[in-house]
Amino acid sequence: MDQSNPRVSLADIEATRPLLDCYLRRTPLVTSQQLGDLCGVRLCFKAEMFQKTGSFKPRGMLNSLHQLDEDAKGRGVITMSAGNAAQALAFASAQLGIAATVVMPQGASRSKAAATEGYGARVLLHGGMHDLMPKVQQLQRDEGLTFVHPFDDLNLIAGHGTLGLELLEEIPAPDVVIVPVGGGGLLSGVAAALKHKRPATRVIGVEPEGAAAMTRSLETGQPERIEDVQTLADGLAAPFAGEHTLRHVQHFVDEIVLVSDDEIRASLRLILERCKLLAEPAAAASFAALLHGALQVTPGSQVVCVLSGGNVDRSLLKTLL
Amino acid sequence: MDQSNPRVSLADIEATRPLLDCYLRRTPLVTSQQLGDLCGVRLCFKAEMFQKTGSFKPRGMLNSLHQLDEDAKGRGVITMSAGNAAQALAFASAQLGIAATVVMPQGASRSKAAATEGYGARVLLHGGMHDLMPKVQQLQRDEGLTFVHPFDDLNLIAGHGTLGLELLEEIPAPDVVIVPVGGGGLLSGVAAALKHKRPATRVIGVEPEGAAAMTRSLETGQPERIEDVQTLADGLAAPFAGEHTLRHVQHFVDEIVLVSDDEIRASLRLILERCKLLAEPAAAASFAALLHGALQVTPGSQVVCVLSGGNVDRSLLKTLL
Repeated sequence: MDQSNPRVSLADIEATRPLLDCYLRRTPLVTSQQLGDLCGVRLCFKAEMFQKTGSFKPRGMLNSLHQLDEDAKGRGVITMSAGNAAQALAFASAQLGIAATVVMPQGASRSKAAATEGYGARVLLHGGMHDLMPKVQQLQRDEGLTFVHPFDDLNLIAGHGTLGLELLEEIPAPDVVIVPVGGGGLLSGVAAALKHKRPATRVIGVEPEGAAAMTRSLETGQPERIEDVQTLADGLAAPFAGEHTLRHVQHFVDEIVLVSDDEIRASLRLILERCKLLAEPAAAASFAALLHGALQVTPGSQVVCVLSGGNVDRSLLKTLL
Repeated sequence: MDQSNPRVSLADIEATRPLLDCYLRRTPLVTSQQLGDLCGVRLCFKAEMFQKTGSFKPRGMLNSLHQLDEDAKGRGVITMSAGNAAQALAFASAQLGIAATVVMPQGASRSKAAATEGYGARVLLHGGMHDLMPKVQQLQRDEGLTFVHPFDDLNLIAGHGTLGLELLEEIPAPDVVIVPVGGGGLLSGVAAALKHKRPATRVIGVEPEGAAAMTRSLETGQPERIEDVQTLADGLAAPFAGEHTLRHVQHFVDEIVLVSDDEIRASLRLILERCKLLAEPAAAASFAALLHGALQVTPGSQVVCVLSGGNVDRSLLKTLL
């Protein structure tokens, strides 16, 4: 790897597969003729809500933890998350026998906090999204914990890339692959895998209009923060892009498009009613981009929308129906 | 087949598979370690919400239509249904090039009526569940249509039996298989397949307390009607058991158990939240029986709950969350 400009290689991604095969599921690709017809394309969903913990996140987390030295593993790890990274760190730590702490915002989904504790992690609810990092840093100092980044880490990105490899094993020549963007870890890994293996595939990232940190970062050429994050997709509410993820997006991704909360809601409903799949709002964003024409797609194209997870509180879901 | 006491044979069921392989999906078995642990068993769901039309019904309907003579096919077919049989008849007729009419109760789910019309069938909304048969008979007389029974038909039962064969191909030795009961067509076919192939498997039917026609029919030994059907599971609201289905249940089924609407609701929520699968109330009844202890199960048993469909109106779903 070129350390001055590091990006994950195909070998980096492939090297994570034996570890992930031990602990994770190979999630199904679900064809929807009905929704494909609605959009004029051949449509598949990569159904990552069936992944362990209900989202893609443990793919990368397992690899991040696996790469730590024994001393760091012994002292324990910490991350910050609104939900899915929390569960993933807790799950992955439990598998590898590492003590885990997660700092979550006070407004975090109750079911995600409960699930995180259910995997055996210590959960600290603390302030809003911008208050998490100072708390993490304090605990790193006080307790000697190692910080595991929820999205901006090369080992994590390599693990997430396995989703792209699985996808190509079932659909060798997708025309377009659409991926939701929070901090950009999933998109970075999937785009790297796809462009290394099949450069002709267009890789599109999707951000909510109210949490468009990656779009802004691409404009300025450096990782940007957003002060006022406004989206119902808590899984995409990261208030900043990462250095590693921005670099991967610049190199591997064709386009980032935006969707509104209303479009996400309509998409979630259709996926539930027609496909019988529970996609969380973050996941529904990928199909929302296709459904509402946020990108140009040639009619008849083979399109894969990555449904990144299915963790949505019942009380929130009720308001979305 | 012994015509004085006809029951479907293994050969009857196996004979339908080439037809069904042409038009239908092989639905997945979804393991849920979390919900299995909750019940102290090894648990799989047969996820029939992913079947064409969103329920198991076209398995049998395709075979019923296929067995008609050319003259009957030319004149067209008719059935009555609160929903899933309607969509299944419409879908199967469209595949085989047959004109279809469906009489549905005025209170039928709007999405099910719309989907039925979407497959090209004529839909007539008419009265309540008890008013459907007279209307069907009138249209048979007036228009020369052939009645296709929504559950009490040997060809239909044979088609439904394919679900049992698929199940055994993936789990060769299930201890218990739990199947929802409306008119009993699905249970009859699945029980026949299972008992022909693996008699040691316990086959359990589940009825809502407020629509227990099969339970009452087993008590009296003849098909009974219920005047006051009260259940939120519209897919299980058949107001009577069939002659064929009662005979199959008597011969092949170990036990019929009852569940309440509250138990169905709790089960639907858990399947949605933990497994990310949308089960309609009828489907959730099978897991409700396990979850709420309606049957005795040896700890550690391999249990399969048949999730018979996923067609539930958004407005109804909202009230169930």
